[in-house]
Amino acid sequence: MKKIYFTVGPSQVYPTLFKYLYKIIKEDIPSLNHRGPDFKELFKQTTNNLRMLLNIPDSYQIFFVSSALEAMERTIQGCVEKTSFHVITGSFGKAWANYAGQLGKNVLKSDLLYSKIPKKAELICITQNDTSTGVWIPMKDIYNLKKKYPEKLIAIDIVSSIPYVDIDYKYIDVAFFSVQKGFGLPAGLGVIIVSPKALEKTEKLIKKGVVVGSYHSLKNLSEKAKNFQTPETPNVLNIYLLNQVIKDMLKIGLKKIREDTDKKAKDLYEFFDNHKKYQPFIKNPRFRSPTTLVFDVGTESEKLRKKLAKVGFIVGAGYGDNKLNHLRIANFPSHTSKSIIQMLKYI
Amino acid sequence: MKKIYFTVGPSQVYPTLFKYLYKIIKEDIPSLNHRGPDFKELFKQTTNNLRMLLNIPDSYQIFFVSSALEAMERTIQGCVEKTSFHVITGSFGKAWANYAGQLGKNVLKSDLLYSKIPKKAELICITQNDTSTGVWIPMKDIYNLKKKYPEKLIAIDIVSSIPYVDIDYKYIDVAFFSVQKGFGLPAGLGVIIVSPKALEKTEKLIKKGVVVGSYHSLKNLSEKAKNFQTPETPNVLNIYLLNQVIKDMLKIGLKKIREDTDKKAKDLYEFFDNHKKYQPFIKNPRFRSPTTLVFDVGTESEKLRKKLAKVGFIVGAGYGDNKLNHLRIANFPSHTSKSIIQMLKYI
Repeated sequence: MKKIYFTVGPSQVYPTLFKYLYKIIKEDIPSLNHRGPDFKELFKQTTNNLRMLLNIPDSYQIFFVSSALEAMERTIQGCVEKTSFHVITGSFGKAWANYAGQLGKNVLKSDLLYSKIPKKAELICITQNDTSTGVWIPMKDIYNLKKKYPEKLIAIDIVSSIPYVDIDYKYIDVAFFSVQKGFGLPAGLGVIIVSPKALEKTEKLIKKGVVVGSYHSLKNLSEKAKNFQTPETPNVLNIYLLNQVIKDMLKIGLKKIREDTDKKAKDLYEFFDNHKKYQPFIKNPRFRSPTTLVFDVGTESEKLRKKLAKVGFIVGAGYGDNKLNHLRIANFPSHTSKSIIQMLKYI
Repeated sequence: MKKIYFTVGPSQVYPTLFKYLYKIIKEDIPSLNHRGPDFKELFKQTTNNLRMLLNIPDSYQIFFVSSALEAMERTIQGCVEKTSFHVITGSFGKAWANYAGQLGKNVLKSDLLYSKIPKKAELICITQNDTSTGVWIPMKDIYNLKKKYPEKLIAIDIVSSIPYVDIDYKYIDVAFFSVQKGFGLPAGLGVIIVSPKALEKTEKLIKKGVVVGSYHSLKNLSEKAKNFQTPETPNVLNIYLLNQVIKDMLKIGLKKIREDTDKKAKDLYEFFDNHKKYQPFIKNPRFRSPTTLVFDVGTESEKLRKKLAKVGFIVGAGYGDNKLNHLRIANFPSHTSKSIIQMLKYI
């Protein structure tokens, strides 16, 4: 039986992925020299295509790292001398704050986006869509924050909302994601989008003698990216796959992908809003994620997941302490409306 | 025309790789949940098989990171409070020392393994086989260093000598490599082998308030590895491939792989030792790498590489400033004796 993965990441692979895995074999991609012209061309194409897909300004740089957790670390190192401020709406926001603490920073936390942010906070870290709870922070709220605190840097984790989330980058200094969620790719590649202002901050920190990382500092990544390279031998295979999937998405159009995502999210939330026993974990629709949906199913998570698995639908358990009472369902471009409707019939 | 890659990494893929790429598709590996039992089993099997292949003591832990450069960073962070000592025989040893400096450490350097090492040096960093120059440091010399300075930690970069290099781990505290060289896999995965003494040092540093990393500190990697997991969503695909290739190597036996490597290296060095115009870059056979061989070809590197490429043999240019006057030829388990002899006919 062919399985369909509704897990929130790694998830269902992008429908064309396997076709590209064959191409990888044919084109000797695993042997590609990461200092040669073919790799540079791949780097250039991938970042250009991503820029086009997500509407990223030309002045922003795009870096490849190994995971979103690495992106959290490099962002803290590159943008914070002493104090970072963290809006926490779930376990990934909490993890980011913990890493900032481990990196020796003074960590301020808030569970409300709208609280007063102390003067000494240099960077505001926001998990725009927290995969653990399914809390979605509307971009408008984030823009308002930037308008209120224009002198502060803002970094957002868009791991599980990309490519759906629509961002006006002029309000954002750093945004990052990994590729095993919305892009439906194997794990092992992270992407950081960085504003000129964030890079200026890194330069300032270096001048002050602050440690901003080593082989992968925003500075070293920036220097190499100018020459379409990475400091280390990167995950070339995944960069290649990402480029292919972005090209597919450009053909379909992000508008269409977003409309489809909205429709599928509506179906899912309506089903659980009208269910007798189960309900969406997030009550206020404004903060409900359209891409990683979390449902409170009492203590029936395991029972439901087993039932669904029997018919080929692999659905996520709750995160951490909520393992047994939440269902987490991904709604990425790889998930068809048809498969969602079929899956819901078994709940 | 099917190409054969003699580049020093990424290089020729392991002969069975493509078979396993098909298995990856069949077994839904890109969708594998990195917190589930199947991933834990994969982690356990891969580390156990690697332990068996390389004769790594049970008391040593094995971690997955994203590259050898990351391994350099995490080793410095986890093992050095103030001062590291670097034996430099090429560009990769130099890079390691630079990263230590960027991480705020006091960096001492030597180009001789046998120089006196100051009391304050906490960690001795040795590029056992430097891919840029083809300098091989015999393991015996490294053991002697540890015997002379038993209180110091020793870390070795075995990126391009693994799995050929035979290590008695009791003299070594950290060893690391990436998988795109001797294992013939796609790039994007690094492996660190860590002694209990190195981990004790990390614990001591944490107690002193020294930053040892964040999501990927030796400490956090160790905690997760105890439960057969990684802090981040890792490069599962490459871990899966590594496990398959290790199993293949266990079947052949490392003794046989080493004998074959010696024979192929002998053929290569004899050819260039007897050549009228070209010669091995390293004069003293004791320091000549059997796995990444560097030859001085005057100014004919580009001409030779073009000639070889025309018949399907892709050979490496010199590193950095030696781009135009060196040839670099890899001799990994993926390279057959037959293909080496054929390639030499065209030189």
